[in-house]
Amino acid sequence: MSQLRLALAQINPIVGDIEYNLDLILSQAKEAVAAGAHVFATGEMALVGYPIEDLSYRKAFIDASRAAVHALAERLEAENLGELIVVVGHLDHDAAADHNDARPRNNPTNTASVIQHGTIHGRYDKHHLPNYGVFDEFRHFVPGRESLIMHVNDIPIALAICEDIWQEGPSAVAKAAGASLLLVLNGSPYEAAKDDVRLELCQKRAREADAHVAYVNLVGGQDELVFDGDSLIVDSAGDVLARAAQFQEQLLLADLDLPTVMTPTNVHGMKRLYLKAKPPVSPALPVTLGTAQPLDDYAERYWAIVTGLRDYVEKNGFRSVLFGMSGGIDSTLVAALATDALGPNRVFGVSNPSAWSTEHSKTDAQEQAERLGISMRTIPIAPIFNAYQDALSLDGVAEENLQARIRAVVWMGLSNQEGHVVLACGNKSELAVGYSTIYGDAVGGYAPIKDLPKTLVWELSRWRNRLAESRNETPPIPQQIIDKEPSAELRPGQRDSDSLPPYDVLDAIIDAYVERDFSITETIAEGFDEPLVRRVASLVDRAEYKRRQYPPGPKLSRRNFGRDRRVPITHRWRDEG
Amino acid sequence: MSQLRLALAQINPIVGDIEYNLDLILSQAKEAVAAGAHVFATGEMALVGYPIEDLSYRKAFIDASRAAVHALAERLEAENLGELIVVVGHLDHDAAADHNDARPRNNPTNTASVIQHGTIHGRYDKHHLPNYGVFDEFRHFVPGRESLIMHVNDIPIALAICEDIWQEGPSAVAKAAGASLLLVLNGSPYEAAKDDVRLELCQKRAREADAHVAYVNLVGGQDELVFDGDSLIVDSAGDVLARAAQFQEQLLLADLDLPTVMTPTNVHGMKRLYLKAKPPVSPALPVTLGTAQPLDDYAERYWAIVTGLRDYVEKNGFRSVLFGMSGGIDSTLVAALATDALGPNRVFGVSNPSAWSTEHSKTDAQEQAERLGISMRTIPIAPIFNAYQDALSLDGVAEENLQARIRAVVWMGLSNQEGHVVLACGNKSELAVGYSTIYGDAVGGYAPIKDLPKTLVWELSRWRNRLAESRNETPPIPQQIIDKEPSAELRPGQRDSDSLPPYDVLDAIIDAYVERDFSITETIAEGFDEPLVRRVASLVDRAEYKRRQYPPGPKLSRRNFGRDRRVPITHRWRDEG
Repeated sequence: MSQLRLALAQINPIVGDIEYNLDLILSQAKEAVAAGAHVFATGEMALVGYPIEDLSYRKAFIDASRAAVHALAERLEAENLGELIVVVGHLDHDAAADHNDARPRNNPTNTASVIQHGTIHGRYDKHHLPNYGVFDEFRHFVPGRESLIMHVNDIPIALAICEDIWQEGPSAVAKAAGASLLLVLNGSPYEAAKDDVRLELCQKRAREADAHVAYVNLVGGQDELVFDGDSLIVDSAGDVLARAAQFQEQLLLADLDLPTVMTPTNVHGMKRLYLKAKPPVSPALPVTLGTAQPLDDYAERYWAIVTGLRDYVEKNGFRSVLFGMSGGIDSTLVAALATDALGPNRVFGVSNPSAWSTEHSKTDAQEQAERLGISMRTIPIAPIFNAYQDALSLDGVAEENLQARIRAVVWMGLSNQEGHVVLACGNKSELAVGYSTIYGDAVGGYAPIKDLPKTLVWELSRWRNRLAESRNETPPIPQQIIDKEPSAELRPGQRDSDSLPPYDVLDAIIDAYVERDFSITETIAEGFDEPLVRRVASLVDRAEYKRRQYPPGPKLSRRNFGRDRRVPITHRWRDEG
Repeated sequence: MSQLRLALAQINPIVGDIEYNLDLILSQAKEAVAAGAHVFATGEMALVGYPIEDLSYRKAFIDASRAAVHALAERLEAENLGELIVVVGHLDHDAAADHNDARPRNNPTNTASVIQHGTIHGRYDKHHLPNYGVFDEFRHFVPGRESLIMHVNDIPIALAICEDIWQEGPSAVAKAAGASLLLVLNGSPYEAAKDDVRLELCQKRAREADAHVAYVNLVGGQDELVFDGDSLIVDSAGDVLARAAQFQEQLLLADLDLPTVMTPTNVHGMKRLYLKAKPPVSPALPVTLGTAQPLDDYAERYWAIVTGLRDYVEKNGFRSVLFGMSGGIDSTLVAALATDALGPNRVFGVSNPSAWSTEHSKTDAQEQAERLGISMRTIPIAPIFNAYQDALSLDGVAEENLQARIRAVVWMGLSNQEGHVVLACGNKSELAVGYSTIYGDAVGGYAPIKDLPKTLVWELSRWRNRLAESRNETPPIPQQIIDKEPSAELRPGQRDSDSLPPYDVLDAIIDAYVERDFSITETIAEGFDEPLVRRVASLVDRAEYKRRQYPPGPKLSRRNFGRDRRVPITHRWRDEG
């Protein structure tokens, strides 16, 4: 047995900002060295950010990433960090792979490089390329062809990247190689309750490989994805030794006692690398293993949205956000989320009352703005509405949509004039059935709650108020907004329930039909009314054109409207079976 | 040698409308029997339409497709067409494939089934699943594992599906099997000049396999894709025996004299099927082999757009289209295209002059509407603009965008009131550099010229006028609209050249940077000014958020903005190298 002090850098890189990411990795490595670590690892593709999508085709980007690995090696050495064994995820290419028109140009790879003493000693290219759900890695990378085992003071450590451990194979390789530790670099996006699945997977692979498993993940938002961290280390029995917090940057340190192997056997397709780290650090103080408690189901969704929203704003260089505050629960929750993400000074609400707006809409919106301390202005739309109607004389749905679109033009005008990014406040239930106005309430650069069903909009609002109470703060969301009946207020006395079923029923049908691919028959078998199921399914099918033009927002569920669900606009398949 | 009369059904199926597609296939089969054909083949997935995207996950759809193959067999028999050997493309599943979380649910396959005498005799599942460009077939299907050779009156015919012949392998299989004919079912979308590439590919595979190649493609529009037909047959020397027209439904018939094989050798992983067709039809009249001339470069783009637009409208059940007619060349070309696609009675133009609109804008738009015989109405925006400005006092770009957005709200109001689908008239050059107003001129259900660079907008306008002259018709596009300097007319005296380089230069830079993935250095090396290349690249990178919310439109180029190009919104990679 030998002692290994391991440092897992759970960081928030920015796609394409290699300089920023390199500095971030260096600063974490410095901290790791100060803590006496032998081995340091980042998440998947940390040097270039993840996912990079079709940017993987750009040769200049591949070249820059390769150069940055060398620069990292040099700067580690220059800053007296050269002794540390650094495993860094980055973009590379497979120079030996055959040219093939069906493959991505330049044969890009999703690579982990091993650096010590200013030298790149070896690399591992991801073998298993996920191409389902939000992932398109057959499109973006060529698969690795060789396994890598690095022996650090005779401790054999097998490397893997994310999807590798979701597939069978790598744990068998680690076992065949006699590895004591399976070190996995990940870019695993948040999804409700995925933390539990990840832990179970690591435990399973640890037992299969008879090895410790160290799992390091990214944190932060990237377009539709939010990486939640949750880096963790389990021993070969599957017991948790250390676990990082979700949604926070953190350097997770652990002292591991691991079996050594002096004369490893050769295995075909496997490369071995022999490295010496500093002598075991037993004289030094042992690090305390932190095991963060995973967040509960509401909290993790709430912080996932906050993280996604904050990073969309920050990484795209926006100063502030602006959105319509109707006094309804959706925009109210968005206001609370935005304030938690950016602080009140960067949040701008706009109230656009019409002739059909209720008095409570205006006062409730005002009350919430005051509770949060955010800016709020009121711009009535009646004069503009009248100018349109003088020219158009619209009625019915066209007249309702007109009001929503006038508001959108006002928000976009203020956005252009003052530099805010507009937020769309639609929830998943609305998006599913097309209960929104395209180019009206659907406008925006980012849509924070688009993957949150209406029932969860209420639950998260209540949860956020409870959090405030537990902190002895004023609850940010006025109770009367949670309690009021939902209405779009586009005609007198309108209520959502005029055209939609109760939201608990609607959300359950959407969960079956959209998220679980149930047929209409299977959905009815869950206990729902047949005509209702058929109507909802038909609404879902016909609203695709609206969703296609909706802004991106953070994925929270097993299947979001976005990268997870790609269906034709033009089709007549109506699942009647 | 034995004679085979082959019928290739180049048809336009509708995604998900199995009943419609089945009837269409039956009517073509009836025609083929009347013409004495032995073997009849459809394009890829013709029974369910193509591409079906994530609909492949729906078990009810797979079941319906499987049932429809049986129904087709029964109806062929019932209508006395049972003697015909029918090869039909459809959705199926691989019941024997292992379950695997990384695979699409239910193991869907892209299948061709062989039907005769009311029985399904065999099937071939596509082996090579394209996952690049516009294709995501690793996401949607599991690959086939067995080859199929059908022996028809001792003529060995190897089957393949689309991508199979773009990869190495299938022609070797056909050769090893001693096949006389390689029959390929395709769903090959249009792309400029792809007809030449396809022909060369078929010729190459024919020579490699020492066999005839029969290539049957779909026609018609499906969201971003347009299938152009161009079905063809070459002999083993690569000479063209028959070729169907582009963009038209057609039953392509050919008499082929093909070598017979009495005692085929067994090849691993290959299934053989022995069928008898009617005796050779030599007593009957031989069919005349038609070889359509491929369209020239402008004509094929023009008809690709017309096809895509017509099918988006028809297949989605719209009655008519509506768009803003500014008097500029973009909306003018769109008016001509829409009129060719739908006829003048289904085309509605709207002129929305502002204070900055020139007199010629109004009169030119009016003149073109009269030439085309389409509806045209004028709704000035000044009163609405003033109502907004009383509340907002916008200036600069915010004021310019306001005008564009007021027009959009007018079009959407008329769309909701009267039932038209709105067309966005932006071209590829504008889309590339973000020279458009989101929720303004960018609104619409379909964007006919989004993959057409501005220089080609002019070329296609001139081409369409020449076509009219060759037919002794009035040219649809007034010459003064082609000749005038482009302007958005959002402020007094504004010209595109105030903020953009000349379009021939801009389009060439876009072609290098976007379509060919050239780095900035490589683009400069093509002979362009360095600061200009850097500025254009930066504009392209920063406009992604606008493109993401732009309506779909027909792919014409090697890389469209849409399925072909998937880059993050949030990223800081600036290709400076």
